[in-house]
This record gives sequence, structure tokens and C-alpha cells, in this order.
Amino acid sequence: MELERVRTTEAANHVGERVRLAGWLHTLRRLGGINFLLVRDGWGLFQAVLETPEQMAPLAGCQVESVIEVEGRVVAEPQAPGGAELRDCQVRVITPVTEPLPFAINKRELKVGLDTFLDHATVGLRHPARRALFRLASGVMAGFREFLRGEGFTEIQTPKIVGSATEGGANVFRIDYFGRPAYLAQSPQLYKQIMVGVFERVFEVGPVFRAEPHSTARHTNEYVSLDVEFGFIRDHTTVMALLNRLLAAIIAWLGEHHASDLALLNLTLPTVPTAIPRLHFTQAQQLILDRYGVDVRGEPDLSPQDERWVAEWAREMHGSDFVFITGYPMSKRPFYTHPDPEDPRYSNSFDLIFRGVEIVTGGQRLHRYADYLAALEARGMSPQPFAGYLEAFRHGMPPHGGFAIGLERFIAQLAGLSNLREATLFPRDMERLAP
Amino acid sequence: MELERVRTTEAANHVGERVRLAGWLHTLRRLGGINFLLVRDGWGLFQAVLETPEQMAPLAGCQVESVIEVEGRVVAEPQAPGGAELRDCQVRVITPVTEPLPFAINKRELKVGLDTFLDHATVGLRHPARRALFRLASGVMAGFREFLRGEGFTEIQTPKIVGSATEGGANVFRIDYFGRPAYLAQSPQLYKQIMVGVFERVFEVGPVFRAEPHSTARHTNEYVSLDVEFGFIRDHTTVMALLNRLLAAIIAWLGEHHASDLALLNLTLPTVPTAIPRLHFTQAQQLILDRYGVDVRGEPDLSPQDERWVAEWAREMHGSDFVFITGYPMSKRPFYTHPDPEDPRYSNSFDLIFRGVEIVTGGQRLHRYADYLAALEARGMSPQPFAGYLEAFRHGMPPHGGFAIGLERFIAQLAGLSNLREATLFPRDMERLAP
Repeated sequence: MELERVRTTEAANHVGERVRLAGWLHTLRRLGGINFLLVRDGWGLFQAVLETPEQMAPLAGCQVESVIEVEGRVVAEPQAPGGAELRDCQVRVITPVTEPLPFAINKRELKVGLDTFLDHATVGLRHPARRALFRLASGVMAGFREFLRGEGFTEIQTPKIVGSATEGGANVFRIDYFGRPAYLAQSPQLYKQIMVGVFERVFEVGPVFRAEPHSTARHTNEYVSLDVEFGFIRDHTTVMALLNRLLAAIIAWLGEHHASDLALLNLTLPTVPTAIPRLHFTQAQQLILDRYGVDVRGEPDLSPQDERWVAEWAREMHGSDFVFITGYPMSKRPFYTHPDPEDPRYSNSFDLIFRGVEIVTGGQRLHRYADYLAALEARGMSPQPFAGYLEAFRHGMPPHGGFAIGLERFIAQLAGLSNLREATLFPRDMERLAP
Repeated sequence: MELERVRTTEAANHVGERVRLAGWLHTLRRLGGINFLLVRDGWGLFQAVLETPEQMAPLAGCQVESVIEVEGRVVAEPQAPGGAELRDCQVRVITPVTEPLPFAINKRELKVGLDTFLDHATVGLRHPARRALFRLASGVMAGFREFLRGEGFTEIQTPKIVGSATEGGANVFRIDYFGRPAYLAQSPQLYKQIMVGVFERVFEVGPVFRAEPHSTARHTNEYVSLDVEFGFIRDHTTVMALLNRLLAAIIAWLGEHHASDLALLNLTLPTVPTAIPRLHFTQAQQLILDRYGVDVRGEPDLSPQDERWVAEWAREMHGSDFVFITGYPMSKRPFYTHPDPEDPRYSNSFDLIFRGVEIVTGGQRLHRYADYLAALEARGMSPQPFAGYLEAFRHGMPPHGGFAIGLERFIAQLAGLSNLREATLFPRDMERLAP
């Protein structure tokens, strides 16, 4: 076959021409003497009509997912998906498949339990709606980078093997590093702060690792973090303002570049308010008491249920799917957190709740060397493992802050998924290390 | 100070206006009664002239790297770097620095040994030429993604914690995964191949981990890999053709977006030939015998010296900084490598040599399930650890291939650095786990 290959998503633009498609045998329906073959390639689906035994012959014994080429003439056909189909076809099998799939991936609904799906994600991800989720994830990353590049940010890649636990705490995976102990980075936090001293404005997209010994629908042990850090801020509100505009840019990017993925998933993009509603931590607790009659005042953190209540308030009172909570108690935030100068029991930090789940954590960081020494001492932590990091502060750092967006959580909330694992290509949790 | 802040790189566009700069005290030179202050921000440098004791007073006791703001009037001045400077200045110190640096970072040449530099990379990276290297690295990533997105590729993020060693071999870091053994991925190879079954065309930018127990100028134990994989190829030459166009696109991107970084580093971009010269492995060995009188025929691989000789040939005979070597012996390539159908002792694989050093490895992969079973058996490897991966091939995979570009090697060769560690933000090797 010498014709140039055309993508399924472009075939309808070639009515009247002969074209060549290549892809997977998605479905083959026999209706009387006519056979409807759906070819799936990396981008979409296209129908080919096979009307003679000769046309069908190459497919003898071929199961779905066989890799094929189909050459034919593009004909407008209002009944066909996409309004056109291929006629006068000639089929060639590239890789025949003889084994049946563990579950069907060519029905609109994927009817399979999560564990079985994940066991066979290798092929399950080929389902058109499943893969659309991960195309959206690629769009979130692209929109994230595009906006930040436009704002003068530089992309960095920092080491994932580290000599000491990032946040000085537990929940860190240990590596055998040539006979010495080393750890997997829980976040690029310390490195992105160091790099504010170099580039002022930095971002990183990469894996982070949390050895949290529990399995919930909102946690996995490795995920993709979209990290931002920048200098010369006033306080955490400067950081929140940037995040607000970034979210709007990402949502706009998805609308512009991923309309077909959104349509396939039947998703409506949220509107990002010009000023996302915000509540101080103590206001959030008061609101929960006032609206829901539950007294969580005095608790040092918000529970998942508290977050859902705050989200309900934002939805009902401000029509917003997003809400900021600021001023978390210092006791629950890491040592580099900047206190609220007005009331140092609370911090210049924030979480962003999207449709009831926290997807971003951020804030202002300490920037004076002496403040770091005091903060570490107050927590009974030694400055020694942080010597390289602290050197940046000994030599001049501006007021700065940043945040980290959890990519899989963002996608899960966007798509209304009940388990983070559905938004993770190949999830890692206490039970799952494969595929 | 209420003026909007202006970046140093934009200040010269504001001649006649009062502006506010913010950044680090890069140098302060006293010439007679006049003081020349160079402010460095995240993007560049700008000169401020301080002429009175009152203007100088805030800087009393401040060392270089103090974080400052300077407000003043922009005046055209041909003698000043960039052709303009700030006069009638008012200085405010944001974060004073009292300690001297471990080495000077405000001279054009950075005069410090590599080990000392790396020990203090936290501040050493602030040197304008040093940070320009990493801005180029960000440009390579951006150009890479931009080109591939335009070619219909989808970005993926695959797990770095894996249940079995990627290439079934040694040199893999072991993790304690909740009491079970797990490993750090040596490459995203198996996952990117699986994802060809989903998206046909995929790329990934991320860390890879090699527990190689040796320290050379060309190796570190963690680096950034730019990975590409795609389906429906004819053979490895389809892959090489894409890589050839990709390299041209990346170099064009650097020329368009990083002119000032290149100028600062005094670098000239290489020309990427429309068709990069190529030699079969056996031709390369013959050429080395003919041109250099050294007989390496029969060796199963090329040595670093052999690669330099082949590069010399490409430079002299074709005027090219790049050269492909194809057809490496199957015995030195991993199990998923596709053999040359004409002579199965050799493979449909390639390396790309850039100015004497291999920066890309790639090739065509096996795509039939039966071929994988045979390849694993021939190497005495069990298919069991690869069950999830092999499932993709049981259910239809097209002929496919790809490659991986080592980001730090690319930058090192581009900038003429003698040690890969100079092109790595925070290198990891047998001796170095910090900062």
C-alpha cells in the first residue's frame, strides 16, 4: 500500500479520495452481508465498510486489537460516526491477535472493577474514554508550563535521590545507595527554594514519593507534582493570585486543545473566578459550626469532611468550584513555613479545595537564615542535614513562596472520579507495584 | 516604594522614567566618589550609580548577595553595560548578607575547582554563566516538547518505583517498599512501549536512575532522560528521521529563545544537517582501521575513543557535528531490540554521536509477542517479571521504536564542558548525595 497514511481524526476531510488508515481493530459488527469495521488509531475512530468475502478474508481468525491497515475511498455518510466512512476497502493485517481481552474495551462504558482494570491497565488504557483522561493530564502539564514560561519562570529538574528526608520527617522511602542510606524526595521543596536564589521564578513537573503506610482513595505512594516557587512576593496572597491566574490559564488551555477529550468524557470545565473565594482557617471552622452544627474549632487541621463542607459553601454562596483556605495553624505545617506576622500561631499558608478535595498546598516560606535556625531548633531538628539548603539563606534570599498541584488529584476532581488510581497511569500503593 | 518593579532586562526600555529594580547586590565598585552598583535579578544585570553618602548609607555592612531594591531614573549611558543605567537612586535592603561567599560569583570567569563548586552549588549556580547553562537546559526541554506536540505526540508520566529491574539487569537501585523489595526505574522503556498501544506516539521527560558503581566524567547516577516512542514505523530509519527533525527543532528553539544565554556563554549553535551522516557499526570499525590504523573489528561495541574518531570523520568529511552509528551487535543490546532482518547478528538500533560523545540511543523494538518470548528465553530470562509489559504484545502492537536523549550530555556537548556534572544542577554520584 503506497498511499500516505491519514489519521482517523482527519479522514472525514478527504471525502472522495482514497486514503490509508492504520490502527487497531476496535470493533467488527456483522449486519447481514455487510460488515462494519471500526479502526482505532492513536487519536480517534473511523468506520470502514467491508461488503465482500474477499474484503473480509484477511481478518479471518483476528480478534479485536489486531493491528491493521485499511485502504479505501472516503464517502460522506450521515449515519456513520463522524459523518463519513471508508468504502471499497482493502484490509491488511500487521499484527494479528488471537487471544481475547481480559475485558471489553470497545464499549462506551468500561464495565470492570478497579482492581481488575489496574491489573490489566496495559490494555485497559486503550479504552477511548480512559485514554482521554490522560490526554487531559498532558494538557494540564502543557497549560501549566505555557503560562509559567510566559510569566518568566524557568523549568528545573531536581534530584529525586536525596541524602536526608525533605521535610525532616517520616513517610520517606529508603534506598540502598552504594551501601549508604539515601531517600526518595518527598517533594522538590528544598531545591525549588534554592533555585529561587538563581532564577527567582522556577517550576518543576516530576514524580514525588510518599511512603505513607495507608491506602485510601485519595492517596498513592508516587504521584506527579506540579511545583512552582518564586521570589519578591509580598506574602502568601501574591502566591494565591498567581495560582488563581494559572488555574484559569490551564482550564482555558484544556478548552482550546482538548474539546474532543472533554466531549468524550462528557465533562464541563469549571469556571475559575477572577478572585477565588477565600476563608481563613478559623473562619472555615466557624462556618462549619454555623452551617452544619459541628464544632471543629480548636482542631489543628481540617478533615476531608470539613473540606467538603467548605466547598459546598463556596459553591452555594459564590458559585465557585474552587475555594482557598488560608492561615493553617503553624503546628501542622513544615519548618520552612512563614508565620502570620499578625498572629504567629497561624501561618501564611493556604490550601486550594477543588470540588471538595484539596489539590494544591502552598504558602510563603521563611527567607532569613536566622529564622530557619530558630524554626529548626523550635522543632528539635538539627540544622546539619540541611547545610546545603541553609547555605542559600546565608547568602541572601528574597521573600518567596510557592505551591504544588497534585496532577492526578486535579484530573480526578475534573473528571469526577471517586478514586485517584483512575487518574494515575500505573498507580503505586501498598498492594500495587505492577504493571 | 510604590513604583511597579521592572526586570533588569527591560530597564533600558524605560529611559527617562523612574523605575524600581529588585534583586541581588552583584557587585559594588567604588571609583573616586562614585559607586557603581550592579543589581542581578532572575534575568540579568543592571547598573545603578550611587553618588552621595546618603544613597550609600543603606548598604553599610552589606556583602555581595544582599537582597535589595533600587529605585531610580533610567538614563542612556553608552559606557554602561546594556547602554543605560539608573541615576538619582534610592536603595532599600530587603535581606542583608554579612557573610562572604565561599568563592566569587561576580567575575566573568568562575575560578573554582569542580568539587568546591558542587559543594556550594546552592550559591555557585547564581553565577550568570552557570545559570545560563540551565536556562539552555530548560530550552531544550521546551523545544523537545513543542516539536513533539506538533507531531501528535502525547506526554506521559510513568512510575519510577518499579517491581522489577527495567532491563532485567544489574545497576539498579533497590528500595525498601513497605518491607518488600522494589527498584528505581533505569528508564521508562517498558512503559513508553506499553503506551504506544494507547496513544501511538508518546514522550516523557523525567529522571532515570543507574546504580553504576563507577565515577567518570560522562556518568552520573541520576539524570534527566528525554524519551520518545512511536508506532507504525518501517524500521529504525523512521525513528532516526524523526530524531533528525527533532534535533533541528530544538536547536532552532534555542536560537530563537536563548540568544542572550548563548551570547553569555560565547556559544555557537551547531547546524543540524537535513540528513545526519550515518555509518553502520561495521563500517565505523573499518573506517577506524583505514583512517587511524587501529583494528577494532570484532569488538562488540565502540569505545569512547572510537566514538571520537567517528565524530572526527563526520566533521571532516561531512561538516557535521552529529553522526549516526547503526546496527550495533545484538549481543550488546537489550532483549527488546529488533534484529536486522538481513543479518540478525546486528540490530535495527542506533546511537547518535554529538561532537564525539553519544547523547542518544534508540532503535526499533520487537513488536510480536512470540518474538519477546523467544528473545527472553534466548537470554535465559524469565518472562514472569515482565507479565504486565508482555500483555501489551499479546493484544496487538504495531512495529515501533524510539529513543532517549540524555539532557545533561546534550548540554555538556553543546557548551563544551569536560564533565557532565557541570551540566547537572545537583549531581548524584558515588561520592555525592548533597546538596
